[in-house]
Amino acid sequence: MTTIELLHKANAAKNAMALAGSQTKNAALLAMAGALETHCADILAANALDLEAAKGTISDVMLDRLALSESRVAGMAQGIREVAALPDPVRAVLSRVERPNGLVIEKTAVPMGVIAIIYESRPNVTSDAAALALKAGSACVLRGGKEAHRSAAAIVAALKEGLAAAGLDPDALQLVEDTSRASANELMAARGLVDLLIPRGGAGLIRACVDNAAVPVLETGTGICHIYVDASADLNMALDIVENAKCSRPSVCNAAEVCLVNRQVTEKFLPMLKDRLSNRPEHPVELRLDPEAAKIIDGVPAGPEDFDTEFLDYILAVKVVEDLNEAVSHIAAHSTGHSEAIITREERNAHAFLEQVDSAAVYWNASTRFTDGGEFGLGCEMGISTQKLHARGPLGLAELCSFKFVVKGSGQTR
Amino acid sequence: MTTIELLHKANAAKNAMALAGSQTKNAALLAMAGALETHCADILAANALDLEAAKGTISDVMLDRLALSESRVAGMAQGIREVAALPDPVRAVLSRVERPNGLVIEKTAVPMGVIAIIYESRPNVTSDAAALALKAGSACVLRGGKEAHRSAAAIVAALKEGLAAAGLDPDALQLVEDTSRASANELMAARGLVDLLIPRGGAGLIRACVDNAAVPVLETGTGICHIYVDASADLNMALDIVENAKCSRPSVCNAAEVCLVNRQVTEKFLPMLKDRLSNRPEHPVELRLDPEAAKIIDGVPAGPEDFDTEFLDYILAVKVVEDLNEAVSHIAAHSTGHSEAIITREERNAHAFLEQVDSAAVYWNASTRFTDGGEFGLGCEMGISTQKLHARGPLGLAELCSFKFVVKGSGQTR
Repeated sequence: MTTIELLHKANAAKNAMALAGSQTKNAALLAMAGALETHCADILAANALDLEAAKGTISDVMLDRLALSESRVAGMAQGIREVAALPDPVRAVLSRVERPNGLVIEKTAVPMGVIAIIYESRPNVTSDAAALALKAGSACVLRGGKEAHRSAAAIVAALKEGLAAAGLDPDALQLVEDTSRASANELMAARGLVDLLIPRGGAGLIRACVDNAAVPVLETGTGICHIYVDASADLNMALDIVENAKCSRPSVCNAAEVCLVNRQVTEKFLPMLKDRLSNRPEHPVELRLDPEAAKIIDGVPAGPEDFDTEFLDYILAVKVVEDLNEAVSHIAAHSTGHSEAIITREERNAHAFLEQVDSAAVYWNASTRFTDGGEFGLGCEMGISTQKLHARGPLGLAELCSFKFVVKGSGQTR
Repeated sequence: MTTIELLHKANAAKNAMALAGSQTKNAALLAMAGALETHCADILAANALDLEAAKGTISDVMLDRLALSESRVAGMAQGIREVAALPDPVRAVLSRVERPNGLVIEKTAVPMGVIAIIYESRPNVTSDAAALALKAGSACVLRGGKEAHRSAAAIVAALKEGLAAAGLDPDALQLVEDTSRASANELMAARGLVDLLIPRGGAGLIRACVDNAAVPVLETGTGICHIYVDASADLNMALDIVENAKCSRPSVCNAAEVCLVNRQVTEKFLPMLKDRLSNRPEHPVELRLDPEAAKIIDGVPAGPEDFDTEFLDYILAVKVVEDLNEAVSHIAAHSTGHSEAIITREERNAHAFLEQVDSAAVYWNASTRFTDGGEFGLGCEMGISTQKLHARGPLGLAELCSFKFVVKGSGQTR
């Protein structure tokens, strides 16, 4: 089927999806989770073919991301069950006002309609994204990467079975068959057929969507996250936070990439940092140092590109700054607007940082790794938005909805 | 100055604007209002030159929109004072959660940064849009129409004087000097320099922005608004509402353009409609009738384009429908997603309509003319959004802001 045909099918199914009640949607999600487990063998067989074909063409890290196992499929099913357990965002009354003329105006959450997601090779995104979009009352069109296509097709077949079992139209979930760039471009251009496009993946894909899409886009972002160690920081706390933000999971977008250190504490803090991060037994961190830091500790000299790179690896760029203002300016110039932290005991400095840094999440004395739907109490998420329009930070179910004003009167005219 | 130079000036001023407190912003707005009145003679002189140049090139209606008078300038000043009186949206805590690990997470409203507005010939938009954007803590770049450029320049000169008088940087307000299409295209392409672009004007301009802009856009919409008269409607109420929605101000986007009538009441309602609307002494309404309505009353035969036209005039398209479902389907196919109403005494039908019609505002027994920031209790507005992302319906001060998550900890790591 062509991508446009798939989009028309999703659009034909979207009204029924929007009208489905919470019980029906949750029953469908539980059936979808069950079907994943029932069809686990089929999914693993399809995944084996994907792995076979990909071997030698992609890195070992990517192969590992692509690989499924019985426990990973069980994890995907569990993820869907967690979405089923979340409150239904649709029909929530966001605000209500009764006007002097008697009109009652309720701002009410409504589904987007058709949500399309362009992603890359991790098969679990297929089930996560479908579960979130469907729970938010939208039809869902998935366009995954070439390497994972057989896996995604087997997963979607199981999920559709679950939808049908609960009496919902399986056409509300579509997997784009064409995995070439052409289909991504078709989705970006499909005005009137796609109500929301979410790219999840590398910076190139996201930039292409933001620059070229004629349909509404929610940008999920790359994260060049900064931690600023202020002159009045508790240096042991700073050390713990920098290590956590860098090392607890370096491949994710909320991991720190840059540490800015106030000049007044470099003599003391930089040797502590070097000692802690370079001597980690399992994964020592490579420090890329600006000239001033390099005078105090050993490390790799940083090139200018090191302050504009999302390493996603055990690498940390380190820069000495004169003061809070220089830290804020550096962040304004180099950040991707994801998450930044200040470590300080000085409330005034903290407030200045929190107010002046314009990122989705700004932290005082905590790790940037908390920028996450679950950690923020929103439940599962579709990604982290780094744009300012509509949603910023973790995209939970509420952020996958629109709203409308429902106005009840008794004959009012103006 | 080139448009890009202007944008850089606005960006240099945006941080100070974002940090300005409510008192400073309100003092600036009051000074801006005062400056408009002080410089009224200059503004009227500039406006006279605009009118002189435009005579013969634009319609009388457009000339009237372009014309200023002492009382219109006073009205503009009053509009700014009303914005000053509204609550400051910036720094509002939209939600707050304390997590089990002790993190306190506040979702906090923040300014967009630089808001650019592309509009056409009404000079009062210059002061309205500037007041709203500045109160929302953003720098403001205005790009008005060629016909009104001298007027806009005089107005902006006065407004900048007001900004400076209150100690704010006058560069936070910029008027684009180039009124050719090139400058609109530059604003659409200025990624990184424009945080939000709002087109206010005709459908062509809005479509061009939505299709081509690389910067975030808020679409303010055309309104093909529908009123559905159900079988169980109070027909006198229906008549009052249709007349009000069509005639109280036909040139605005929330005016009704189409009346859908349930077949069961056509024999009774259509003659009432004809009698009321065609016999208005000042502005009789031209009825454009589908074949079935034309069998019952006299009128102009409707062409198919009449159900896809924003008349903005004393013209109403009338169509007979079988039932609620046909009304909902017709609206889905022809509406611009602005405002639609059902007139009925049947609660079940009302709820079905309110749930199934996917527009910014849906009404039960009230006129579509209420879709308005003031009528919804939001105060002044920047327009009515017909898109689903970010904001739908009246764009008040809150909708001109973004938000960020401010997270306070005591050393938490993950």
